[in-house]
Amino acid sequence: MKYTDHGVENLKIAYIGGGSRGWAWKLMSDLAVAEDISGQVDLYDIDYEASLHNEIIGNKFNSAKGAKSTWTYNARRTIDEALCGADFVVISILPGTFDEMESDVHTPEKYGIFQPVGDTTGPGGIIRALRTVPMMEVIAEAIKEHCPKAWVINYTNPMALCVKALYDTFPEIKAFGCCHEVFGAQKVIAKAIREATGEEVADHRAIKTNVVGVNHFTWITDASYHDYDVNKIYADFVERHYKDGLPKENPASTFECAHKVKFDLYRRYGVIAAAGDRHLAEFCEGSWYLKDDEQIHDWGFARTPVSYRKGDLCERRARSERLRTGAEEVKIENTGEDGVRQIRALLGLEDFITNVNLPNRGQIPNLPLGLIVETNATFRDDAVDPVFAGEVPEGVWQLVSRSADSQLIMARAARERDLDLAFKAFVNDPLVGLDIPTARALFDEMVENTKKYLLEYIR
Amino acid sequence: MKYTDHGVENLKIAYIGGGSRGWAWKLMSDLAVAEDISGQVDLYDIDYEASLHNEIIGNKFNSAKGAKSTWTYNARRTIDEALCGADFVVISILPGTFDEMESDVHTPEKYGIFQPVGDTTGPGGIIRALRTVPMMEVIAEAIKEHCPKAWVINYTNPMALCVKALYDTFPEIKAFGCCHEVFGAQKVIAKAIREATGEEVADHRAIKTNVVGVNHFTWITDASYHDYDVNKIYADFVERHYKDGLPKENPASTFECAHKVKFDLYRRYGVIAAAGDRHLAEFCEGSWYLKDDEQIHDWGFARTPVSYRKGDLCERRARSERLRTGAEEVKIENTGEDGVRQIRALLGLEDFITNVNLPNRGQIPNLPLGLIVETNATFRDDAVDPVFAGEVPEGVWQLVSRSADSQLIMARAARERDLDLAFKAFVNDPLVGLDIPTARALFDEMVENTKKYLLEYIR
Amino acid sequence: MKYTDHGVENLKIAYIGGGSRGWAWKLMSDLAVAEDISGQVDLYDIDYEASLHNEIIGNKFNSAKGAKSTWTYNARRTIDEALCGADFVVISILPGTFDEMESDVHTPEKYGIFQPVGDTTGPGGIIRALRTVPMMEVIAEAIKEHCPKAWVINYTNPMALCVKALYDTFPEIKAFGCCHEVFGAQKVIAKAIREATGEEVADHRAIKTNVVGVNHFTWITDASYHDYDVNKIYADFVERHYKDGLPKENPASTFECAHKVKFDLYRRYGVIAAAGDRHLAEFCEGSWYLKDDEQIHDWGFARTPVSYRKGDLCERRARSERLRTGAEEVKIENTGEDGVRQIRALLGLEDFITNVNLPNRGQIPNLPLGLIVETNATFRDDAVDPVFAGEVPEGVWQLVSRSADSQLIMARAARERDLDLAFKAFVNDPLVGLDIPTARALFDEMVENTKKYLLEYIR
Amino acid sequence: MKYTDHGVENLKIAYIGGGSRGWAWKLMSDLAVAEDISGQVDLYDIDYEASLHNEIIGNKFNSAKGAKSTWTYNARRTIDEALCGADFVVISILPGTFDEMESDVHTPEKYGIFQPVGDTTGPGGIIRALRTVPMMEVIAEAIKEHCPKAWVINYTNPMALCVKALYDTFPEIKAFGCCHEVFGAQKVIAKAIREATGEEVADHRAIKTNVVGVNHFTWITDASYHDYDVNKIYADFVERHYKDGLPKENPASTFECAHKVKFDLYRRYGVIAAAGDRHLAEFCEGSWYLKDDEQIHDWGFARTPVSYRKGDLCERRARSERLRTGAEEVKIENTGEDGVRQIRALLGLEDFITNVNLPNRGQIPNLPLGLIVETNATFRDDAVDPVFAGEVPEGVWQLVSRSADSQLIMARAARERDLDLAFKAFVNDPLVGLDIPTARALFDEMVENTKKYLLEYIR
Repeated sequence: MKYTDHGVENLKIAYIGGGSRGWAWKLMSDLAVAEDISGQVDLYDIDYEASLHNEIIGNKFNSAKGAKSTWTYNARRTIDEALCGADFVVISILPGTFDEMESDVHTPEKYGIFQPVGDTTGPGGIIRALRTVPMMEVIAEAIKEHCPKAWVINYTNPMALCVKALYDTFPEIKAFGCCHEVFGAQKVIAKAIREATGEEVADHRAIKTNVVGVNHFTWITDASYHDYDVNKIYADFVERHYKDGLPKENPASTFECAHKVKFDLYRRYGVIAAAGDRHLAEFCEGSWYLKDDEQIHDWGFARTPVSYRKGDLCERRARSERLRTGAEEVKIENTGEDGVRQIRALLGLEDFITNVNLPNRGQIPNLPLGLIVETNATFRDDAVDPVFAGEVPEGVWQLVSRSADSQLIMARAARERDLDLAFKAFVNDPLVGLDIPTARALFDEMVENTKKYLLEYIR
Repeated sequence: MKYTDHGVENLKIAYIGGGSRGWAWKLMSDLAVAEDISGQVDLYDIDYEASLHNEIIGNKFNSAKGAKSTWTYNARRTIDEALCGADFVVISILPGTFDEMESDVHTPEKYGIFQPVGDTTGPGGIIRALRTVPMMEVIAEAIKEHCPKAWVINYTNPMALCVKALYDTFPEIKAFGCCHEVFGAQKVIAKAIREATGEEVADHRAIKTNVVGVNHFTWITDASYHDYDVNKIYADFVERHYKDGLPKENPASTFECAHKVKFDLYRRYGVIAAAGDRHLAEFCEGSWYLKDDEQIHDWGFARTPVSYRKGDLCERRARSERLRTGAEEVKIENTGEDGVRQIRALLGLEDFITNVNLPNRGQIPNLPLGLIVETNATFRDDAVDPVFAGEVPEGVWQLVSRSADSQLIMARAARERDLDLAFKAFVNDPLVGLDIPTARALFDEMVENTKKYLLEYIR
Repeated sequence: MKYTDHGVENLKIAYIGGGSRGWAWKLMSDLAVAEDISGQVDLYDIDYEASLHNEIIGNKFNSAKGAKSTWTYNARRTIDEALCGADFVVISILPGTFDEMESDVHTPEKYGIFQPVGDTTGPGGIIRALRTVPMMEVIAEAIKEHCPKAWVINYTNPMALCVKALYDTFPEIKAFGCCHEVFGAQKVIAKAIREATGEEVADHRAIKTNVVGVNHFTWITDASYHDYDVNKIYADFVERHYKDGLPKENPASTFECAHKVKFDLYRRYGVIAAAGDRHLAEFCEGSWYLKDDEQIHDWGFARTPVSYRKGDLCERRARSERLRTGAEEVKIENTGEDGVRQIRALLGLEDFITNVNLPNRGQIPNLPLGLIVETNATFRDDAVDPVFAGEVPEGVWQLVSRSADSQLIMARAARERDLDLAFKAFVNDPLVGLDIPTARALFDEMVENTKKYLLEYIR
Repeated sequence: MKYTDHGVENLKIAYIGGGSRGWAWKLMSDLAVAEDISGQVDLYDIDYEASLHNEIIGNKFNSAKGAKSTWTYNARRTIDEALCGADFVVISILPGTFDEMESDVHTPEKYGIFQPVGDTTGPGGIIRALRTVPMMEVIAEAIKEHCPKAWVINYTNPMALCVKALYDTFPEIKAFGCCHEVFGAQKVIAKAIREATGEEVADHRAIKTNVVGVNHFTWITDASYHDYDVNKIYADFVERHYKDGLPKENPASTFECAHKVKFDLYRRYGVIAAAGDRHLAEFCEGSWYLKDDEQIHDWGFARTPVSYRKGDLCERRARSERLRTGAEEVKIENTGEDGVRQIRALLGLEDFITNVNLPNRGQIPNLPLGLIVETNATFRDDAVDPVFAGEVPEGVWQLVSRSADSQLIMARAARERDLDLAFKAFVNDPLVGLDIPTARALFDEMVENTKKYLLEYIR
C-alpha cells in the first residue's frame, strides 16, 4: 500500500470465501464509496467459478452510480496467491455445504432439541465447529506464511471458535471477529427512546453501549444517549411490550423476532441482551424458549429451516448470474456494516469505536483469559485495542460462563481432533439435556452425517 | 482460658443451638476424650428446656467410661450470657421448624420439582436462606459485642450463606463452616483402592485430597495415597460400577446413596465429585437426576421426606429423655467429626489440615472474591488459613459458577430483605426451570407458608 | 442543557479555580471556537476578584475574531452557586500559595534532594498532596450535593491523588484527570519519524500510542503510524541522540528538556517513557538523574525554581489586567488541549480517544485495583471507558509499582489525616533515601513550613 | 519404595552435590533418626572423590549412637545412575568454585557496592544465577528422563532462580526450594515473647507465622502464639531494641546479626521481615544499609568475605578426612532442618506445614504468576500445596515487586543465554545505582572473571 495526500492507494485485500453471493457484494459496495482508499481485492474460494463471477461483478462496481474509488477484483486459484502481500484479509466461508448444516440443525429434532439457527452453540454449533476449526487453522498458517502483518477480519461462524483457532494457530495474528448482531439491540433501544420521548434517533450508532459477553450472547451493561435515562426508558418499554413483543417488519421472516426473549431475559436479570432472540434462546436451557415449535412461536420468533437457506441460495445464484451478465445492474447501497470503516481506521484515516470479538486479555475480568469475547474496541492506525468492558453482571454471569467453559473445551477438542472431548462439551450444552448414552447416540449420528468433513477426527 | 504444661484449662465454649439432640452429644463425646483441654460449655437455645436437658446430659459425660477431661455444661437463658467471654462459638441451629422445612421441600413437588434434601440450594435452600440469614446476623452482632476474638464454627445450613452472613455482618469475625460431606467421597476412593489393590485404607483421612467448590458441591481435583495412581484407580472403579452403583449399607436409608450420580458426573467431567449424591443432584439441572421419583430411584438414591425427619426428632426426643433421666447411659463414641481437633489446633496443640468453608480470598482464582468456598485450610495456633486450591476445573466450572452467582445474589437479597431480588436467584435455579409467572407463584406460595419467619421481608 | 439540531445549548460549566490566569484563558479560547455548543461558565475561586476579572475577560471572547459560539461567564461567590446544576465541572486550583510550593521544592535541597518540579511525587509532591486532598474532598462533597451527574475534569496536581480523593469521597462521581504530558512524547516520536523518513507528521495525535502508568510517569507500550515500524525508528533515534539529546526550542527554559532521561530510560528498559524528563527523573532513584545541579545539567534539563513561578505569576497578573481593561485584546489560539473535545464527545457530538487518569478497574492488570492510572479511554455520549491497556512492562513495572504503592499509602494518610502514615510514604520515596531520623526531621520541617494548610493533621 | 506396616522401606534418595561437606552430613544425621523410613542414598558430585568420602561417612551413621534406621550410601559416577528410579532428589550444589564467588562478592567493591552475602540478589546474585541456571536445566532434564515422579528438594542459591529453572525446564517437576532463613525471625519473636511475658517458647515452630515474599526477602504478615498479642509484643520489642540491636551469640561471626535492619524495616513498614539482616539489606537500596563497612557495622552486621568461606572449606575438608578415617566419630545431632520431615510427610507418614519456595499460582495475588515465591505449604502424602498467603502488604510490596521483576528478567536472560538482557536486571538492581556505562563495565568485568562458567552466553 502507499500513503498519499488523499489517503491510501494500492491496498491489497484478500477475500477468503470470495465466491460469496451476499457478504462479498456488500463489501464491494462499501469499498466503492470509500473515497480515500483504493487498490485490489483478491478473491479466493474453493468454488473457483464463483470467485470468477465475483471478479466480474466486483469490477462493475467501479462504474456504478455513486462509486468514488476504484478497485480491481481478481479471482485467484490458490489461497497463497490471494494472501501474498495482502494488507487485509477478509474471511467469510461456509464450512461444508447446506447439507451438513441440515444435519447440524435438524438431526437433533429427533431428540426433542430445536435450534433456530444452529451455527454458534448447541449441537449444531458444536458439530459445525468441529469442521470449521481445521479450516481456520489452514487459513491461519497461510496468513503466517504470506502476510503475517495483515489485519484479518473474520465473519465466519461459529465466530468465537473461529477467531480462537486463528489465534491458537498463529498467536501473533492481527485478527478480530466482526458481527452486526449488537446493532439490532441498539435499534430496539432507539425505538424505546422514540416511544418515550418522541425523539427520533438518527442512527443506531448514536446509542452508546458498553458490551460484554460472547458472540451472539452479548449484554449491554451501560447504554447512554444524550441526557436521557436510557436504562429507565428501556425498563418501562419492557413492561409495556413484554406480553406481545414488538411487531416484525416482515411477519413471515424466520430471521426477525418480536424481542420477547430479550424482554424476558431483561426481567430475569435486569440487563439488556444484545443479540437476536433466535441466538439468545440457544444459549439458555432448552426448556425456557425452545421446548417445541409452539413454545417458540409463543415467544415470537421462528426457527430458520435449512431448506429455506437452500432456496435462498438458489435465488442468490440466480442474482449472481444476473449481475454477472448485466441483466441486473450492480447498485451501491448503504449496508450499515462496519468492515470498511474498520479498514479505514486501521489505515489511520479516522478513529473508530465498535464492538468486535477478540481474545480476553482482561477486558472482561470475570471470564477466562484467552476466551474469545465480544466487547467494544478502539480502531486506530494499525491498532485494535479492546475497551475495558468490566465484569459480566451477576445473574447473567452464570449463563455466559457456561458458554465460556464450553468454548474452551471445544477449542481444545477441535485443535486436538478429539471427539471424546468434544462430546464433553456436547453433553453439557444447555440445549442437550440428555443422559450420556442418548446424547452420545445423537452426537455419533451427527458426526456420521458430516463425516466427509471430519475425517481427521476419526482414527 | 489458661495455658498449662499439659494443655489448656478454663476454656469457654458457647454452643448456639445448644438444645440440639444430635450434634451436641457428639461434641460432648469428643470433648470428653480430649485429654489436654478442659473448661465449660455454655448452651443457648431458643428452646431453653432443651438446653437444660443437655446441661444434665453433658455433665454426665464427665463420668462416662473413657472420659479423659472434665467439662462443665451450663444452660443459659440469653445468647449474651452464653457468648460472654467465649473462646469458641459453635453454631448449630434449625432455622424455623420442620413445618417450614416441609414447605421448603415438598411445596415445589406440585410444580414437578423434587428435592432430596432441600436445605442448601434449589427452591428449598433459597427459602431456608431467607429465614436463616437474619438469625445469623443477630448471632454475628452478639459475637461482635461479647466475644469478638472467639473462633466461630458454623454447622448450620445453608452453610455457604450462613458463613457469608457472619462475615457480611462482622467482617473481622474468625469464623469457618464445618461439614463432613467430603469424607464420604474419601471413603469411596478408599473402597476403590481396596478393590484395585486389596489394601485396606485405615482412615478416610489417609486419602489426601485437594478440594474446590462450594459446600455440598465440592470437587476433588487431586487425590493421593502412597504410590498409587489414585485417579486411574478411581476411573477404573467408575467403569466397573457405573451401571449398578455401590451397595448401600442400609438399603432403606434415604440418606445413603449408590454413588451413581457421582460416577455419572465423573464420566461427564473427569473430576471426582465430593458430596453425597442427594446433594450433588440438587446443583444440576432438574432433568438430569431429579425428574421424578422413578428417575431418582434409578440413580440409586432417594428423597428424604420431612415426615421422616419429624419422626426421627420424636425418637431423638425420647432418647434425650432417657439420657437425661439415666434410663440410657451416655456413651463415648468415635464420631469422626473434625470439630474438637480443630479446636485443639486453634489452641496450638497440634497442626491440622482439613476442608472448611471460608470467604474466597483467592484460594480458588476462578470464583468471585468474597464467595464462601470450600477448600482445605491449615489450622494452627489461633490461625486458620485456606490452602491455595487452584481453579475449579473446566466443565465443572460452569456448574459451580452457577451456584456461586446465585449465592452472591441470595446473600444480597437476604441482607437487604429483598424478595424480588431473591426471586431472581429462585427463577434462575437449575431445579426451577419454570417461566417467570409460574416460578413466581411457587415462590410466593413458599414465602406465604413460612411467613412467620419472613416478616422482615414483607413490607 | 438542551439538545438542538445543531448541537447543545444552555450548557453549564462550573470552573473551580476560575480565577486562573492561564488555563482558564485556554478554555475560553477553545470554547469560543466550538460551534455546536454554547452556554454559561460559572467561575469560582477563593480569590473572588480574580474570578471577577475572568468574568470580564471571558465575556470578551464572544466578540473575539474567530469566535463561533457564545458563552456567558459569571463569577460566583460560593462554590455551591457555581456547581448548582452544572453539566461539567473543571477543577484547576493551586493548593496553597507559591510560598508553600517554595517549601515543597526547596526545603529538601538542604538534605541533598533536588526536585525539578516537586508537585507530583518526591517530598514536595507528598506534602502538596497532604494539603490538596482535603480540598478535593470538599469539592467532591459539593459536587455530590449540587450536581452529582456532572462530568468532572481535574487538572490539579498531584493529579493521581486528586482524582483518587474525588472518587474516595464520592464513589459515583464521573471524574477523570486530564494532562497533556503524553503529547510531548508523541512529538518526539514524530521527530524520529521525520528524521528517519523525511515525512512530516501533521499532528502528534496521528501517532497512535498505547499508554500505561501513572500520571507524569507514563509509558508507551505500543506506538503506530501508518506502515512504519515505529519502535525500530525510535530505537535508532535514541542511539543517535542518546549522548547529546535533542536541542531545546528555548535553551533558557526550565520547562523544556533534551529528552536524555527519556532516552536513558529507553536504553534501560526498551520502553518509551511518555512524560517530560523533569517529571520522569522524580520517579527514579535520586542518584540516577538528580544528584546535584551538575548532574541535572548533564542530563539536559533544569529545575524550575519557585522564584521563577512567582515572577511568572506577576507577569500573568499584569496580562490579566491588560486583558480586563482592553489594553490587550483577547485572542483565540490553537491550544492543543483536549478539554473541549472531551466535553463535545461527552455530549455525543463525536467519539474521541485520548489518555486520561481514572481508577484502575483492571485496565492495567498488574497494578492494584482502585489506583489512579493513566491509559487511553474512549469518550462517547455520557460515557468515559478506559481502554484495556495491558500490563506495565517488565523492568518498568518495578518503578511504577513503587509509585503505585506510595499513592495508595498517601491516599489513606491524607484521608485519615495521619502524618505518621504519610511519613511511611515519605521515607520510602525514591528521592528521599535518608535514614529514619533524618527523613523525619525533613518531613517535620516541611510540615511546619506549610502548617497553615495542615491544621487538620495536627492534633 | 515399599510400604510396610511400620513405614516405608527401600526408599531411594538421589543427592546431587553429594560430595557436600556440611549439608550432606546433616541429612545423614536426620535420616538416621527417622525410624519409619529406610533405603539408599545415591551421591553424585562433579568431585567424585568427595562423594566417595561421603559414601564412607554416610554408612558409618548406621552404627552411630541413636541411629534408628539403616541407609546405604553409594557414590555414583554419573548423574543418570544417581537419579535412576529415585523417589526423592536433593539438590545442593556450589555453582562454580569460591574463586567465582570471590569475583561475585568482591569485584563490585571497586565500584562502591558492598554485599554481605552476594549469592541471591545484587551483582553477585545475578552473575551467580547466570552460571547456575544452566546447571539446573541439566539436572531438570535428567530428572525428567530418569525419575519424573520424584520429589525434588532444592537447597542451592540463588534459590528462586534455581527453582524457576527447574520448572521452566520440566514444568511437571515436583520440586520445591527449602531454606531455614525464616526460623531466625521466629526465634526473634520467641525472644520478644520471653522478654514480655517471661514465657519460654519451646521451639521456634510453635510461633505460627504467615509468610509472603521471595526467598531471603520474606515477610511475616501474621504471627500467633497462644493467646498473646504477638504483633503488639513485637512492636514494643522493636522500640526497646531498635537502637542497640540484640546481642550476637558469637560477636565475631560474620553470619549473625543484631537484627537492627529487621527492626528498621519494621519501623518503616510495620511488617516483620523474616530473614537475616545480611540478606535483607541486599534487597534494599545500597544507601540504606550498605554504603560502606562503617555503615554496615553501625547496623550491627558484617559482610562475609569469601576468604572466610575458603578457610572454612579447608576446615570442613579436614573434618571430612577425620570422619572418613574414623579419627572423628560421626555424631547424630538435632539439626533443626525440615528436609527429612518433609520427606516423611510426602510419604504420608504425617501432615506437615512449613514455608517453602514454589511457583506462584496465586498464593500471593499481588505478585506475578509463575514467580518463585516463599509461603507456607502443606506437605501431605505425595502432595505439596501452597497455603494461600495473601498480598504482600502495602509499602513492602514495592520492595518485593522490584525483586520479583528482576527475577523474571533474569530467568529469561539465563534461559536464553542473553547477557544484554541480564544487564537490564543488573543495572536496575537496588545495590547497583550506577549509570549505564559504569554498570556495564562492572558487569563485563564480572562476566570476564567467571567466564569459564559462562561460555554458552558468549557467542
